[in-house]
Amino acid sequence: MEVEAIARPDLDGLLRSRRMADGIRIERLAVRSGKRAEVVDVTDRVQRVVSQSGVKTGVCHVFVPHTTAGVFINENADPAVMQDFLQSLDRLVPWEQGYQHAEGNAAAHVKATLIGTSQTVPVHDGRLALGRWQGIYFAEFDGPRDRQLTVTVLP
Amino acid sequence: MEVEAIARPDLDGLLRSRRMADGIRIERLAVRSGKRAEVVDVTDRVQRVVSQSGVKTGVCHVFVPHTTAGVFINENADPAVMQDFLQSLDRLVPWEQGYQHAEGNAAAHVKATLIGTSQTVPVHDGRLALGRWQGIYFAEFDGPRDRQLTVTVLP
Amino acid sequence: MEVEAIARPDLDGLLRSRRMADGIRIERLAVRSGKRAEVVDVTDRVQRVVSQSGVKTGVCHVFVPHTTAGVFINENADPAVMQDFLQSLDRLVPWEQGYQHAEGNAAAHVKATLIGTSQTVPVHDGRLALGRWQGIYFAEFDGPRDRQLTVTVLP
Repeated sequence: MEVEAIARPDLDGLLRSRRMADGIRIERLAVRSGKRAEVVDVTDRVQRVVSQSGVKTGVCHVFVPHTTAGVFINENADPAVMQDFLQSLDRLVPWEQGYQHAEGNAAAHVKATLIGTSQTVPVHDGRLALGRWQGIYFAEFDGPRDRQLTVTVLP
Repeated sequence: MEVEAIARPDLDGLLRSRRMADGIRIERLAVRSGKRAEVVDVTDRVQRVVSQSGVKTGVCHVFVPHTTAGVFINENADPAVMQDFLQSLDRLVPWEQGYQHAEGNAAAHVKATLIGTSQTVPVHDGRLALGRWQGIYFAEFDGPRDRQLTVTVLP
Repeated sequence: MEVEAIARPDLDGLLRSRRMADGIRIERLAVRSGKRAEVVDVTDRVQRVVSQSGVKTGVCHVFVPHTTAGVFINENADPAVMQDFLQSLDRLVPWEQGYQHAEGNAAAHVKATLIGTSQTVPVHDGRLALGRWQGIYFAEFDGPRDRQLTVTVLP
């Protein structure tokens, strides 16, 4: 699981990092996946955006601007949980299943729709108010690819 | 896939369109489905609510006030993706499966719960900050019916 | 289905109820589940938080800080719908399936990820703007346990 900062000029104009006048901060994070299907723990990087925003109380919204990837929140302790998660999804939505979509990645679209494209987390005292065992995970379903996450902090 | 403005007097008092004093805008959109299960692209209509709100930076929340329909974000280019999505859901949650619910539409309730009743999208420079291939879709699972979407723009 | 207020000292510092200076209210609700898998209707308790917040227009965010439980919105009229929902999930994600997670509750993690850890509902005229048949449900997938819900009201 590689995570790396990558310049994406096409989105730079749209989502360049800045603190808005009304106190909302929108930031773009780059995520690089290394396999067809894998999960990448982005909790620390999202927390960094929250910290830099200066927001003490509010919510943090994490959005995936892709159609074959998602974001979810689950256990950050035992990596086996993430393997079970990916295998369960493979069982529910097999890669080959007589799909009509010509690009061959229909299963990735369906998985992304089941998992969802965004998560919202309360922010309290400047910290993501996650439970003790929770982490925020980017879910790649059609990698390896360079991906994005859009993080919005609402005060 | 018909989409049409429909008067719904029962909700008019609750959700009539207006700009609130604190800058939040809540708007109700009408969606008409034509089949038992189908998806309706509502991206342009949601963008119109965002534009009319005058909000430049924030988030847009799209909520389905029904129990047998949902809303999701996925590919807006190849319609085959949406067919694969609906067929995959049918395979996961068959219409007949020995359900207890007497109305006969239990599968639609389960599908709606898997897909979810709302989506939140970042707003940047007055535009929904969707990815290049993303559209917002209303998902009908027990149509045809006249449906609603509640759009809230948070500045 | 028991629902009861329970003191949770470990979270009290983090999430003690209070109205923040910027008008955001974060409140913690305790939920006690009585079975391995069940749903608990928390709509009235969430509405109470909204009422106490004084917020008239905005959104209410309900967050589950656990990795084997979730929250969803669906029918509040016929309890059979909730039984069909739990049984459909059992069929999709069986309790035993050769999982790697050593704690034996991998299925609960997967179900929680499919259902999701939070829901966002519009608030209008100080009320949750839910549809006529909608309720907010805490979903237990590895009970019985004492659980939490974090409710944030954004004005």
